[in-house]
Amino acid sequence: MKNLKTQLSICILFFVISFFSAQAQISNDLTHEEAMEVLLAAKKKAEDQGTKMNIAVVDAGANLKAFIRMDGSYLGSIDVAIKKAKTARYFDIDTGKLGELTQPGGIIYNIEHSNGGLITFPGGVPIIDENGTVIGAIGVSGGSIDQDREAAQTGAKVILE
Amino acid sequence: MKNLKTQLSICILFFVISFFSAQAQISNDLTHEEAMEVLLAAKKKAEDQGTKMNIAVVDAGANLKAFIRMDGSYLGSIDVAIKKAKTARYFDIDTGKLGELTQPGGIIYNIEHSNGGLITFPGGVPIIDENGTVIGAIGVSGGSIDQDREAAQTGAKVILE
Amino acid sequence: MKNLKTQLSICILFFVISFFSAQAQISNDLTHEEAMEVLLAAKKKAEDQGTKMNIAVVDAGANLKAFIRMDGSYLGSIDVAIKKAKTARYFDIDTGKLGELTQPGGIIYNIEHSNGGLITFPGGVPIIDENGTVIGAIGVSGGSIDQDREAAQTGAKVILE
Amino acid sequence: MKNLKTQLSICILFFVISFFSAQAQISNDLTHEEAMEVLLAAKKKAEDQGTKMNIAVVDAGANLKAFIRMDGSYLGSIDVAIKKAKTARYFDIDTGKLGELTQPGGIIYNIEHSNGGLITFPGGVPIIDENGTVIGAIGVSGGSIDQDREAAQTGAKVILE
Repeated sequence: MKNLKTQLSICILFFVISFFSAQAQISNDLTHEEAMEVLLAAKKKAEDQGTKMNIAVVDAGANLKAFIRMDGSYLGSIDVAIKKAKTARYFDIDTGKLGELTQPGGIIYNIEHSNGGLITFPGGVPIIDENGTVIGAIGVSGGSIDQDREAAQTGAKVILE
Repeated sequence: MKNLKTQLSICILFFVISFFSAQAQISNDLTHEEAMEVLLAAKKKAEDQGTKMNIAVVDAGANLKAFIRMDGSYLGSIDVAIKKAKTARYFDIDTGKLGELTQPGGIIYNIEHSNGGLITFPGGVPIIDENGTVIGAIGVSGGSIDQDREAAQTGAKVILE
Repeated sequence: MKNLKTQLSICILFFVISFFSAQAQISNDLTHEEAMEVLLAAKKKAEDQGTKMNIAVVDAGANLKAFIRMDGSYLGSIDVAIKKAKTARYFDIDTGKLGELTQPGGIIYNIEHSNGGLITFPGGVPIIDENGTVIGAIGVSGGSIDQDREAAQTGAKVILE
Repeated sequence: MKNLKTQLSICILFFVISFFSAQAQISNDLTHEEAMEVLLAAKKKAEDQGTKMNIAVVDAGANLKAFIRMDGSYLGSIDVAIKKAKTARYFDIDTGKLGELTQPGGIIYNIEHSNGGLITFPGGVPIIDENGTVIGAIGVSGGSIDQDREAAQTGAKVILE
């Protein structure tokens, strides 16, 4: 009798867990609130750096979710930031790491010609949740490539906090 | 005692159901097996009609998942079929119904100029699962608009069977 | 002594130039803080309406300044919202009013083919400052055209408050 | 009598023309059934490899004939797979071999800028029939370049079996 009750409790527990994980996973995607948090964290980092950035966040389908262009930043960086975010999600990779493979003689030389144009230097970073699932990506452009990457990483990390 | 066992059985049943629905819902998206079923059902309908079709299936992110061009069908219908599928998912609507709103004087006249080109006559249909969630879309081009729509609807319905 | 006077003159010249260029920036263009205020006011209105919107803000140069896509809104509305904002700034006009002129027989029939695609139904509104200068524009897409226009107007008005 | 001879001549002429044009269709192009066989053989190979691939098949005119994106494969590989197939047919060559010629200093440096974007690393393979005629091509993207090439070759070979 006791065993049965214990089994029942465990069973209910599993049911509740699986129910809520199902709920959580329904979209397997970034919410717009999360996208704004990612974007604002990257913007805060840019302000600390003293840089003027374009910051783009895309969702799991590589579609634009949030964007901001800081005053005085390069106009040409609008498209670079968006393409960095898309590239990071297209191949679930830091765009700088991708770029190491696309150099002359590299195994995927000139892949930049696909998907309407890729950007393969640092500044694009996948956004990964606590389950290790890629739920989107962030792209930053306007500073040095190290500053762009640092700001992008700062943004992406917010999801794990 | 009997009640407890019954409860346990029901509980396990719920657990199993929620577990599998969780599995199914993880991506909230069409699998490639489902995409192929949708595509082949539309192709079968085209064969019954005696038409030669281009058939495209996109996923929840409006990204291409499966495609076939039947022998002798129009080359120009490749892009039309893909755009019909994308349009149906972009706005979660039968492309023919969208087209009623885009005519001269219509409330969204000339929306076709967005998204790299939309197709707003019949032949694109959202793919909806048993929960009412749009998990993708199908686009068919090559016959009359009525035949295109019929083949697309036949494909989309497979998901509910 | 002559050197000192020359230095002073150069110094004053720089001051005057920087003063007027500062003026130019202050009055002729949207800041990113203002763009975010416009965007969030439109988002608040969308929440009151119970609609799911894509909201884009462009600056005086018609370049993207801020963007958000609300969860569950149409994927196809990303581009529509951005194009509405650009169209409103390209011609400094409510996109719905522009659309009255682009119908068959209209004086600028099919102008939508220019500029990589225009959107000429309601939802795009110029952002005008207290001097009557157009400093940017907002585009909203996802609800009915009346809801889109209302949300866009609500956003644009924030600049005058 | 003269009329009859003329009619007979015309009739024979039509027969000859239709015979050769039939021949042309039969031997020079992939059928959709063949395209599906090629695609499914490559997919089977991907499953054996444990990779998640995007697979595209184009016909003799370099136009898309069949496509599948396996679940969980890169979104960016949709376009890469299609461009590999097109590139292989555009120049009737293994895309990896083409890439050896497009490096800096190479004889066709940066040819990737043509045709709306080429992909010139391994994974695209011409489909050749038993007469040595190129009747189409296959492009595979999602694994390592060696896995992509292996899956593409496996697909292309099906036509000779």
